[in-house]
Amino acid sequence: MKINTITYEKGSLTILDQTCLPEKEIYITIEKKEDLWDAIYQLKVRGAPAIGVAAAYGICSVSKHNLHMELSQFREEFENCCRYIESSRPTAVNLSWAIKRLLGVVESHYTEAEDSRQLFDLIEKEAIEIHREDVEFCQKMGEHGLGLLKPGMRILTHCNAGALATSGIGTCLAAIHLGQEKGYSFKVYADETRPLLQGARLTSWELCKNGVDVTLICDNMAASLMAKGEIDAVVVGCDRMAANGDGANKIGTLGVAVLAKTFGIPFYMYVPSSTIDMSIESGDEIQIEMRDGAEIYQMWYEKDMAPKGVKTYNPSFDVTPADLITAVVTEKGVVTAPYGENLKKLFD
Amino acid sequence: MKINTITYEKGSLTILDQTCLPEKEIYITIEKKEDLWDAIYQLKVRGAPAIGVAAAYGICSVSKHNLHMELSQFREEFENCCRYIESSRPTAVNLSWAIKRLLGVVESHYTEAEDSRQLFDLIEKEAIEIHREDVEFCQKMGEHGLGLLKPGMRILTHCNAGALATSGIGTCLAAIHLGQEKGYSFKVYADETRPLLQGARLTSWELCKNGVDVTLICDNMAASLMAKGEIDAVVVGCDRMAANGDGANKIGTLGVAVLAKTFGIPFYMYVPSSTIDMSIESGDEIQIEMRDGAEIYQMWYEKDMAPKGVKTYNPSFDVTPADLITAVVTEKGVVTAPYGENLKKLFD
Repeated sequence: MKINTITYEKGSLTILDQTCLPEKEIYITIEKKEDLWDAIYQLKVRGAPAIGVAAAYGICSVSKHNLHMELSQFREEFENCCRYIESSRPTAVNLSWAIKRLLGVVESHYTEAEDSRQLFDLIEKEAIEIHREDVEFCQKMGEHGLGLLKPGMRILTHCNAGALATSGIGTCLAAIHLGQEKGYSFKVYADETRPLLQGARLTSWELCKNGVDVTLICDNMAASLMAKGEIDAVVVGCDRMAANGDGANKIGTLGVAVLAKTFGIPFYMYVPSSTIDMSIESGDEIQIEMRDGAEIYQMWYEKDMAPKGVKTYNPSFDVTPADLITAVVTEKGVVTAPYGENLKKLFD
Repeated sequence: MKINTITYEKGSLTILDQTCLPEKEIYITIEKKEDLWDAIYQLKVRGAPAIGVAAAYGICSVSKHNLHMELSQFREEFENCCRYIESSRPTAVNLSWAIKRLLGVVESHYTEAEDSRQLFDLIEKEAIEIHREDVEFCQKMGEHGLGLLKPGMRILTHCNAGALATSGIGTCLAAIHLGQEKGYSFKVYADETRPLLQGARLTSWELCKNGVDVTLICDNMAASLMAKGEIDAVVVGCDRMAANGDGANKIGTLGVAVLAKTFGIPFYMYVPSSTIDMSIESGDEIQIEMRDGAEIYQMWYEKDMAPKGVKTYNPSFDVTPADLITAVVTEKGVVTAPYGENLKKLFD
């Protein structure tokens, strides 16, 4: 894999600007909190695990400019920065989860720290650990997930839950990448994933780059393939999973899950444990981010694709109920129904 | 309704070029068979009934330039033109149906006709009759369809089966337009309908123009609305229906039908009898037009939206099996299952 989604060197976060793909590979270095907020909101970095890692490193990158401050002021600025960054995208649990881990370090070590530098070093260590875990979890999810797939399978995926969505080899695409290494000859179908086209721009690019046989379709073409018996499995990522196994993921995932159920195709959701939010009982409690309608009728087009002033409905995610999910693939292993019980065991 | 999709005056066909909507209302007059073929292939005129009417008028428009020919030569040119135009889009049955009607006129009246002019007049009369029937059938479908809907309903539609798809007030949108006249206060959700965006460009435009409350969504957002209980009915058109009630319509219709079934929402397919092909037993026999992948990753965009050389799968239609269709609305009345039996009665 030669995709550098997130790098952190000498206290500076650099990300691959995914809004420029597939046309250009542009890397941007982030030093200001406004740029970090913007990078997350604008989806320059996206995908729940990648957002978590980028936020952690990004907050370090911003905070290292405050090392001259008194410890108390450093802490205040740090906590302000955390709250601000957390507001950039409300649905992905990894963002608040990563920030919580950094805040926890401050909480635990503030009194013993001698100065800002010492506290910063501990925060940075935690960020590096978040990154290391993500890389490891991706690898493990790929291994567990590959056990559910067979060579030659035709696999549909939605959005991008790949190397571009993590700091490792991806969540659901990890299994595809590992299969590719082992000569599994998967045939992957990538939903283009409107409105932001992560499937067309990112998944196609990532899989082409890794030599995987990938075919791009519009979201509304999946049913046609399934009805013809052309899909053997569906793999998707997850942005937040509730304790009962309901999973919020990119808008359109629910529709794919319903289709998979109807056509008798297994539907696998790849969910690192950091994305499972045991504090919420069901998907009903997941806040769904609503975005600007211009993403639908204007963003990618040379001219407006709808009449001026037309109303839009543009949720960024939908919730797939647990009963449509054949298995949840985590870094700790594969979980099947009953999810309420079996997800709980995962954390015991 | 102030939408002039198709007009025919003094032997000349003029169509509203729908590829320019919603930005510009451009009307083009067609005199050459190549321009007619291109207008149908490029979807400048589209929608099964509109294609039928435009083809009939267009062939007249082309043929009137051959009135100086001997009758036998006129017939040969006419029949060549018919065969050529029929090749422009294979799925919509109305195209071959309209052409068959014109060819039937020639077949029946060739021996008695004194010259090209006389034969042409009969052909033109048939084209005008095809148009008149379409206008009448739209009105009747609207009336029958409205009986299935209630004021205040929230209605999802896919693609454009409206005034822009016919020479009248539409097929499935006829019910919406009539409801609007009667103060039904429908709330319509329009799927954008990738790849050619007929929902965003055409349905939104047509409904806005007629004052209907319309909200534009991406195709993959319908499931989210249905799961939230925000959709009371689905209305769609049809490009070819088999004798058993399987209906081919714009790609994505099958997915919407599966979702509607899953969420317990009635799914109504509007099908003028000219679109029912009793010569084919089931949807398996419907030839599905495959189109260029550039429609997916290039056509509307400023830059390529996928890596160069990525494979695509771009069928223009899919087939919704009869068991997912709550009712078929025709100009002769509403038909319900068992379709094999009840569609047959329609033609008796």
